Amino acid sequence: MNYRIVVSYDGTRYNGWQKQKTTEDTIQGKLETLLSRMAGKEVTVQGSGRTDAGVHALAQTANFRMETELSEQELMDAINGYLPEDIAVLSLKTASERFHSRYNAIAKTYEYRLYIGNAKPVMDRKYVWQPEEKPDLERMRTAAAYVLGEHDFKSFCGNKKMKKPTVRRIDRIEVEEIPERQEAVLRFTGNGFLQNMVRILTGTLVECGQGKREPEQMREILEAKDRSAAGMTAPAKGLSLVRVDYQ
Amino acid sequence: MNYRIVVSYDGTRYNGWQKQKTTEDTIQGKLETLLSRMAGKEVTVQGSGRTDAGVHALAQTANFRMETELSEQELMDAINGYLPEDIAVLSLKTASERFHSRYNAIAKTYEYRLYIGNAKPVMDRKYVWQPEEKPDLERMRTAAAYVLGEHDFKSFCGNKKMKKPTVRRIDRIEVEEIPERQEAVLRFTGNGFLQNMVRILTGTLVECGQGKREPEQMREILEAKDRSAAGMTAPAKGLSLVRVDYQ
Repeated sequence: MNYRIVVSYDGTRYNGWQKQKTTEDTIQGKLETLLSRMAGKEVTVQGSGRTDAGVHALAQTANFRMETELSEQELMDAINGYLPEDIAVLSLKTASERFHSRYNAIAKTYEYRLYIGNAKPVMDRKYVWQPEEKPDLERMRTAAAYVLGEHDFKSFCGNKKMKKPTVRRIDRIEVEEIPERQEAVLRFTGNGFLQNMVRILTGTLVECGQGKREPEQMREILEAKDRSAAGMTAPAKGLSLVRVDYQ
Repeated sequence: MNYRIVVSYDGTRYNGWQKQKTTEDTIQGKLETLLSRMAGKEVTVQGSGRTDAGVHALAQTANFRMETELSEQELMDAINGYLPEDIAVLSLKTASERFHSRYNAIAKTYEYRLYIGNAKPVMDRKYVWQPEEKPDLERMRTAAAYVLGEHDFKSFCGNKKMKKPTVRRIDRIEVEEIPERQEAVLRFTGNGFLQNMVRILTGTLVECGQGKREPEQMREILEAKDRSAAGMTAPAKGLSLVRVDYQ
C-alpha cells in the first residue's frame, strides 16, 4: 500500500525534515524509524521537499509504502501514539500506487511570521521573528512584486555549491497585517523553492521595508545571480510550510 | 511614582504568579528582583491576583512604586530587555497614587483552550488541553448556565483549608468553537475566582460534555459545598488570564 500523509511539526528542536547520517533528530528520520519498527522492515518516507533546521510545517505532505492489517484511522492513531508531541500526522489515506509526494507536487505555500508590535511576542516566540526595526509593509509589497513570475533565483539560494537549475516560478506573495496579533504574515506560493530561498526573500523584503534597500533593487538582485547581492537570511523559526498542492 | 503595567507570560516553566520563599521561579519574583535591582532598593509588585503554576497570562495587570528618571517607554523597554523571553510588559503607565491592581479590579476574564480535533495540537501543545473524549459543546453550555450569577463556589475551590468567603459572581461563560483551530474556547468573566476555580469548572463542564455527568447536576454540586462533589481539575496549561477590568 502507498500511504499519503499530511504531517505537522514544530521544527524548533529538529535538524530539518531530511534524514541525515549524523543525527537522529530529523522529522523524516523519526517517521522512518517508527514505521520501520511497526512494519518489521525498512520503510522509506518521501516528503514533498526538505525544510531547513528549525523550520516548522503546518502541513507537509509525504508518502510511504507499507503492508499492514490496520485501517487508515488505526494506522494514523498508532503513528501519532508513538510520535513525540511536536510531530503529528493530521491525515492518512491510501493513495494510488504512482503517487509521489515530491514529483507530483505542483505548488507549495510557505508562511513567514513577523512580530511587529512594540513589546515581545511571548506565546509565539518560537514561531515569529521580531526584526529590530519595524518594516513598512507597503514598501515590502512593492518589492515583492518584482520577483513574481519565473526567474533565476540563484541570488536567493543558500546553497553555494548548487549545480542544478535555479529557475523557479513564484505565483503569489501576500504581505498581510494581522493587527490583533501585532504581526505581518508573508505568504509565498510557487512551484518550488531553493534552499533558504523563502528566508532570503523575507530577509531582503524586510530590508526594503526598513528603508535599507529600495524596492526597485529586487530586479538587480535577481540579475546579479549572486547570493551576496541579496539581503540577510531571516531566522528559521518564523517560517512554516503551510500547504502542498497536487493535481 | 505608582506604575501600572500589563504583563503577558507563558507560565509553562513558572511556579505561578506569586512570589514564594522556596523558589525564584515565579513571575512576581522575576519582576521584583529586576525592579529592585534597577531601583537600588526593594520594589514590591502587586498583581491583580495569583495565577497557578503553569497557568499563562495574555494580560495580567500589576502595579509597583518606584522613583526613576526614565520615561514610561524607556522604563518599559529596560524591563523587557532584562526579562526572560517568556515574560513581557505590554504596557506601562503612571497611575494615580491610589491605584491598587487587586483592590480596584472589578472583573477578570479567563480563557480555557480545549483541543477537540482528531490529531495532535502540535504548535499549541503547551497552551491547550486535549480531553481523551471530545465533549459535546451544547451540553457544556447548558451546564455552564447553572453556575452563572452569585453563588458559593466552595465545591469549585482547590484550597481545602480555605477560611475566607467563597462566594463569587460569574457574569458570563462562553463556550465558543473555533473550527479552523479545531478548538473550543471557554471564556469565564466574573468578579473574582477562587484557587483552581476555573480549572475545576472546566473539568466539570467537560465531564458534562462527555456525558459522564448531567448538566443539571451543576446545581447539586454548588449546593454540596464540597470539592469532592465537582469534577476533575483541568490541567493548568490550557488556562490563561486574558483580561482584568477596572472602573
